[in-house]
Amino acid sequence: MPAWERYLTDHQQRFINELTQFLSIPSISSQSEHMDDVREAGLWLMRRLKQAGLENIELLETGQHPLVYADWLHAEDQPTILIYGHSDVQPIDPIELWKHPPFEPVIKDDRIYARGATDDKGNLLIPIIAIEALLAETKQLPVNVKFCLEGQEEIGSPQLASLLEKNTAKFTCDLAFSADGAQKSETEAQLILGRRGMTGLEIDVLGPSHDLHSGNYGGSLLNPIHALADMVAAMHDTDGRVQVPGFYDSVSELPADERALLAKTPFDEAAYRDSLKIPETFGETGFSTLERIGIRPTLEINGIWGGYQGEGSKTIVPASAHAKITCRLVPNQDPDDIVAKIKSYIQQIAPPAVTVEVQPVEHGAYPYAISPDYPGNQIAGGVLEEIYGRSPYYIRGGGTIPACSLFLRILNVLTINFSFGLSDERLHAPNEFFRLASFFKGQKAYCLLFNALKEGAQTLRKRP
Amino acid sequence: MPAWERYLTDHQQRFINELTQFLSIPSISSQSEHMDDVREAGLWLMRRLKQAGLENIELLETGQHPLVYADWLHAEDQPTILIYGHSDVQPIDPIELWKHPPFEPVIKDDRIYARGATDDKGNLLIPIIAIEALLAETKQLPVNVKFCLEGQEEIGSPQLASLLEKNTAKFTCDLAFSADGAQKSETEAQLILGRRGMTGLEIDVLGPSHDLHSGNYGGSLLNPIHALADMVAAMHDTDGRVQVPGFYDSVSELPADERALLAKTPFDEAAYRDSLKIPETFGETGFSTLERIGIRPTLEINGIWGGYQGEGSKTIVPASAHAKITCRLVPNQDPDDIVAKIKSYIQQIAPPAVTVEVQPVEHGAYPYAISPDYPGNQIAGGVLEEIYGRSPYYIRGGGTIPACSLFLRILNVLTINFSFGLSDERLHAPNEFFRLASFFKGQKAYCLLFNALKEGAQTLRKRP
Repeated sequence: MPAWERYLTDHQQRFINELTQFLSIPSISSQSEHMDDVREAGLWLMRRLKQAGLENIELLETGQHPLVYADWLHAEDQPTILIYGHSDVQPIDPIELWKHPPFEPVIKDDRIYARGATDDKGNLLIPIIAIEALLAETKQLPVNVKFCLEGQEEIGSPQLASLLEKNTAKFTCDLAFSADGAQKSETEAQLILGRRGMTGLEIDVLGPSHDLHSGNYGGSLLNPIHALADMVAAMHDTDGRVQVPGFYDSVSELPADERALLAKTPFDEAAYRDSLKIPETFGETGFSTLERIGIRPTLEINGIWGGYQGEGSKTIVPASAHAKITCRLVPNQDPDDIVAKIKSYIQQIAPPAVTVEVQPVEHGAYPYAISPDYPGNQIAGGVLEEIYGRSPYYIRGGGTIPACSLFLRILNVLTINFSFGLSDERLHAPNEFFRLASFFKGQKAYCLLFNALKEGAQTLRKRP
Repeated sequence: MPAWERYLTDHQQRFINELTQFLSIPSISSQSEHMDDVREAGLWLMRRLKQAGLENIELLETGQHPLVYADWLHAEDQPTILIYGHSDVQPIDPIELWKHPPFEPVIKDDRIYARGATDDKGNLLIPIIAIEALLAETKQLPVNVKFCLEGQEEIGSPQLASLLEKNTAKFTCDLAFSADGAQKSETEAQLILGRRGMTGLEIDVLGPSHDLHSGNYGGSLLNPIHALADMVAAMHDTDGRVQVPGFYDSVSELPADERALLAKTPFDEAAYRDSLKIPETFGETGFSTLERIGIRPTLEINGIWGGYQGEGSKTIVPASAHAKITCRLVPNQDPDDIVAKIKSYIQQIAPPAVTVEVQPVEHGAYPYAISPDYPGNQIAGGVLEEIYGRSPYYIRGGGTIPACSLFLRILNVLTINFSFGLSDERLHAPNEFFRLASFFKGQKAYCLLFNALKEGAQTLRKRP
């Protein structure tokens, strides 16, 4: 057993205690009341990075939630890798479905339950802990390391582009790793060859100036809920294909060999359906479930509301109705282009008897893809094979990490997803958790990865 | 000036103070937390009836909210009239739109603002005050009077039918008057020739067992909000005509002469549109705005919700989506038949990829109609002409008072709406109010009405 592995084992309880502390900070980036909490999570990270032995630790202001930079740059002639993660979390509602308060972590059955446990605080701590172990035991790292730990991934990393553009030299590197991501299962690894992009908007349908008595007025004016439902219904056909004109225009077809490579990933449709407790899966014809998630775009209503939601009935024609929409995008869709097309479609179908307003709610993120042949994938794949005892599967991830496409566009480096969450860990949902076994496994994997990157250094600068 | 009018003038400030007390009781019948408040409003009324000189005051239990009975039966050989009203009120949300707390009445510009001010507490006090004035000045009433004051009109009077059936003798009368209703404007009176009935249900669309990350899952399952929007959109065609099969089957055509009588009621379409701040009115083709409200049925979504409603975005496929529906019914639609037809239609259009459940939320109420020729209408019309200086218009009211059809079916008596609210008084909406001038005008009208009923007594027992 290498010295660093002994160190990880010996200090694991402290690492879990630290994760518990980190998870207690309610760093919800989308809610202004939690502004200070997101900053606190950044300051907590700075202290933790210093304790691990990182240097040049800095809080970079974005105008909204700050970003934490740190580095260790004493591996002469070795490549420099950039590690990405985020310390902000999703909102907690519906709060009544949480079995424990979301910011009072509870450990049960070798799992830690709290908002942000898997997305991304648990995963984010892993590379920091790995570095602490290597530095503690060998006083040095095999490669140069930089950290880019942001506080606003969950709101679409709105100022990450401008911050990277202003600090290109600071973030210069040979290859990036994202500590936000997932493996396939407890016993199967995966390499993620793509990430969907994202964009979003809100529709507000305004009817009468106030709620009206549905008896005294009903039948004489268009109910804003009816108008909104009509517009939402017009967004998809009965197969779930998006009906916004031009929505699929710039979707690039996946090469047949990559589609075949992805199809090798085993997938149990019945188990998937049962795990979600849905009667059947549903989506665009001509694509498998994994393809519908990984290589096809979506237009999803994330929330809808209008009128009375309480107990019993309230007989009104409501004053307004609202819907929040986000789209997941695939190469080569452009977030701004898609928002413009949706706005134009809404204007086209909005009935004249109500007022329809559209406002952006989500900062756009470009989709991202990486070739399976890229040497960085080969190195990461070798480490995963050593840890899991079998070679990883290749998938396209349905989620969005804006940093991946930004690092490529601004820093001209590729990003490999190297993270240890699992998709059943209720990320973005009540009772989010992270497996403590994955927490430990990830720490070992990052130690092995740093060593492997030094060994494979000469291949890294070539891009296929 | 008759003695009773002097009495009303002299004591008006006390009556307004009493109305303020009555409005301070948060008697919301649809919310179980207000169960005791609804009972308190009934007890308050009992005390007020006693003070006015009523007798045999009794709280009748319904199993839910109690009903108040009282009478004065010393007008030998004179007809007996039954006065109806309700002391329960609508919920108060959206609470943030109230300028003053809804149960802390505020008087401003000769209006009293509070939940229930016009619907129906202000209107309900009017006949009680009129009786107090007549008894105070003459020690007797021109006719026999009974009160039926319930506490659950706003939830559809669920046990009123069984209570009336068990107490037929107690409520026996020659004619009923509803103190719940409205006049046309401050200077124009109206006689209401019909009331729409009502029924309702809730649709619950259940998708995955918990909210899912819209990146990791989106595209592979049917979003419950999409399914619900499709079903809601399928409820109406583009003209607002209800698409539930058989919905209009039992709607009886209004006789041409009555339709012509109703059409004499002046209506300013532009002023109506502007008062509601809507771009245009909207409804079934072939019917005027007043007809769409009075003689046509509706299917209205009173509330819709699902997923995230907070600030910013939350990128989920939600676990569920919900809608509350009520229908306003016209003769001869049957509430149970309509609910059965809607349920059957929902089952027919529910997509198989989600679970759709339907539950009743509103106790059914039958529609009600009365002929303009009925002698009671002639007597009431004469009183209104004396008060307003012009003859009343005839309308069909869009609202529902379950008591009207129940009195006809169970007690075999007709009900005349004799009430002094106006439709702009924000009933069921934030900042509900009642004009104090209407409060006073109504008291005079009821005193005149009691006298006129004695004079016209011989015509009343004939029904046209």
